[in-house]
Amino acid sequence: MPSNAGVNIRRKGFAHERELAVRLYREGFAVIRAPASGSRVVRLYYPDITAIYRGRILAIEVKSMSYLRDVYIEERKIRRMNDFASRSGGKPYLAVKVIGTGEWRVIPLDVGERTPSGYYRYPKNLIESSKTIEELVNEVKSLQ
Amino acid sequence: MPSNAGVNIRRKGFAHERELAVRLYREGFAVIRAPASGSRVVRLYYPDITAIYRGRILAIEVKSMSYLRDVYIEERKIRRMNDFASRSGGKPYLAVKVIGTGEWRVIPLDVGERTPSGYYRYPKNLIESSKTIEELVNEVKSLQ
Repeated sequence: MPSNAGVNIRRKGFAHERELAVRLYREGFAVIRAPASGSRVVRLYYPDITAIYRGRILAIEVKSMSYLRDVYIEERKIRRMNDFASRSGGKPYLAVKVIGTGEWRVIPLDVGERTPSGYYRYPKNLIESSKTIEELVNEVKSLQ
Repeated sequence: MPSNAGVNIRRKGFAHERELAVRLYREGFAVIRAPASGSRVVRLYYPDITAIYRGRILAIEVKSMSYLRDVYIEERKIRRMNDFASRSGGKPYLAVKVIGTGEWRVIPLDVGERTPSGYYRYPKNLIESSKTIEELVNEVKSLQ
């Protein structure tokens, strides 16, 4: 593994985050991306993307993968996301980009099942049948 | 002027931002700080501090100064803050820290008067008589 592989993976992750951020921005959301972990001076935690549309707040954890598979998220991150969501009055989500197809799926963070090893599991079939970005956007915009 | 003076001034600005961020966090807000301008890769604009309490969103521009004086903010920043506020459904504020006394004042961004040179002016006396952080927090928390 070349010494800069980690950096490259992280950069690619940022490109996908950026794609989602720009899409939500174009839909009229105020969008905030968390800074790159390297440059994060602060101890305060925030989601990869916070997207706000007229008082409706989405806290989004972003994952990208070559092909659709089960996703695991560490319990510590789930707790932090939930804390952010409860302070802000927002809803926490996991957004998955499948790089092969270019498709996104968005799934509520609270549907994950805790594994004995302290991760939360989001099964492939649940991700596959969850909302597209467009469906999520329409849902958020239709709320009163 | 030593060559790193600009960097030092910026660092001090961050320390004050951080102080305000931590205070709001301790009051139960979800708080997001904008990354340092240097490390900002993205074109999306966001406020120095976004603080959210159960669906109530504050977009905060932070200024620190040795002694209380009039504050000027460029029109471009005001426009961006207003855009962020209208997308998010939040309220834009200017938070001023007077370093000498350690006191903070928080003033709604929309009370600034436009100068012929394209700045918005926040007069010293208006800042002086505006809310403390505690008063702002109590106001936000008392909203239904």
